[in-house]
Amino acid sequence: MIQPPTIADIDAAAKVLAPYAVRTPLLTSPALDTLTGARVFLKAEVLQRTGSFKFRGAFNKISSIPENRRASGVVAFSSGNHAQGVAAAAQILKMPAVIVMPEDAPALKIARTKAYGAEVVLYDRYKEDREAIARDIQNKRGATLVPPFDDPKIIAGQGTVGREIAEDMIALGVTPDIISSPASGGGLMAGIAIATRARFPNVTLMTAEPDGFDDHARSLAAGKREPHTHKGKTICDALMATIPGEITFAVNSKLVARGVTATDAEVGKAVAFAFNELKLVVEPGGAVPLEALMQGRMDAKGKTVAIVLSGGNVDADLFARLIQGS
Amino acid sequence: MIQPPTIADIDAAAKVLAPYAVRTPLLTSPALDTLTGARVFLKAEVLQRTGSFKFRGAFNKISSIPENRRASGVVAFSSGNHAQGVAAAAQILKMPAVIVMPEDAPALKIARTKAYGAEVVLYDRYKEDREAIARDIQNKRGATLVPPFDDPKIIAGQGTVGREIAEDMIALGVTPDIISSPASGGGLMAGIAIATRARFPNVTLMTAEPDGFDDHARSLAAGKREPHTHKGKTICDALMATIPGEITFAVNSKLVARGVTATDAEVGKAVAFAFNELKLVVEPGGAVPLEALMQGRMDAKGKTVAIVLSGGNVDADLFARLIQGS
Repeated sequence: MIQPPTIADIDAAAKVLAPYAVRTPLLTSPALDTLTGARVFLKAEVLQRTGSFKFRGAFNKISSIPENRRASGVVAFSSGNHAQGVAAAAQILKMPAVIVMPEDAPALKIARTKAYGAEVVLYDRYKEDREAIARDIQNKRGATLVPPFDDPKIIAGQGTVGREIAEDMIALGVTPDIISSPASGGGLMAGIAIATRARFPNVTLMTAEPDGFDDHARSLAAGKREPHTHKGKTICDALMATIPGEITFAVNSKLVARGVTATDAEVGKAVAFAFNELKLVVEPGGAVPLEALMQGRMDAKGKTVAIVLSGGNVDADLFARLIQGS
Repeated sequence: MIQPPTIADIDAAAKVLAPYAVRTPLLTSPALDTLTGARVFLKAEVLQRTGSFKFRGAFNKISSIPENRRASGVVAFSSGNHAQGVAAAAQILKMPAVIVMPEDAPALKIARTKAYGAEVVLYDRYKEDREAIARDIQNKRGATLVPPFDDPKIIAGQGTVGREIAEDMIALGVTPDIISSPASGGGLMAGIAIATRARFPNVTLMTAEPDGFDDHARSLAAGKREPHTHKGKTICDALMATIPGEITFAVNSKLVARGVTATDAEVGKAVAFAFNELKLVVEPGGAVPLEALMQGRMDAKGKTVAIVLSGGNVDADLFARLIQGS
């Protein structure tokens, strides 16, 4: 199997990203601390370029493509945030990009992907195989596939989120008891795990997933990769991958303690909380760890917790509905 | 006349505030830079405790009340953000607070003020005199009046916004050509002016106001305090003061170049832009300088601009309407 990245790979990714990625702030909220009884730090990746952490991995990966292969461009499949990350990174690096997106992806995510200059190919999420479509484009055009999570360069890029969390907390003189991030394929969690476990050996890492789309929770409990069994939909469109990645799970099965979940109805409350109290726009998938924390599922009372608000790309209509509590 | 605060007073306020106020981040947005042709820094006071900068001035003022007067509490009149700032500051300092609020203030602002433990007295913004009501309560209870803007301690507290902008920009090695903040009574602008003009002698300072509520723009042009003439309403409920303060205008008339404005319809677009691109919840009044910048009214092309997003306390219904463009 391909080896996961090391801390040195994440340090290297941080250098590659420095001129282009936003060094997102680690925020605090007295209201959230009061509500949870924990000392909470929020890594606001909603403020990242393209509105999610996905830009980090995509830019790190695409930057590594050799000069002689750049003209053929890149291809990626994504429900939306990776799509924007790849499109924006390719645009900065002056490379063509084709993105294969589900036709029911949020309109905002599709529009924004096109706005970054990418060609968008839509498919039916419930009938067609996005990987096959992407591979076909890859073969025909000679484009480089930018996988959404199961790739050392992608994981190293996402790991810079954990590197920044660690740097900021060390500067503040605080040690996290718990760090949690959303998980779809597990690339963000794996990168954060590699970046933080060596610095904080006693930290408890937790994935956060939508109820029913809990392949990480199940896999971590079983000690082996298990798919989720959900056949329906979730408002957490960013977190619908069916099974943890091979490379990401090789990392997460060693370093991550367990998975927590929240239902769509619960996640809607976290989105509304973030609107009312944090003044941040967080998409449903990006709010799952926040909601799991507020639901008491992290046993965080009296502890220091860092959670990632991973993305903020949500359609106005859905956001309006969630903040109006309907 | 009472003397305005000095830079030393703002430094002292920063020390008083350090354990309680959020040191809000100075954010950047590649999308905004592309759109405006400027290098833009956003002081995200929406992330401040209580959701607006007003906590700073209120806490600095209330902290200065002598021990023997604290049991009688504080009284304030406010359309909402100052109300929350005063209520939260009084709660931290374990003092009773009475807040006189207009009955048409956003429901969220009234609810949040009560949530901070304050007693709320409602009045008719178009018929009653809020200052008279507050003075009456002041006389009956022996409470200390916490004015919304025309007070050296308040101005010094708001000045910490400018102090942090200056510190962060100096650390980044950049010099602002323009700094702009919303203006109602002018306390935030005056504090920022005192904190930044000595550090950046060539900076152009601009107030930003809703169209028709442009008493600062008019007063700065006339060289004397002039009321605005608008009799109607604006979605910028935080920016409805009718005339610049005496102390604030003594500062602003010397240090601030001019005022810019934006209509309600325009401001709605800035709120939607902040939702879509910045992933920040900005209330209409807090988005006026952003909109004026995007409308080209600051002649900012090629320049380095710092603008304050001063508050994020907006009702869900209004926010939903603005982001849905209706």
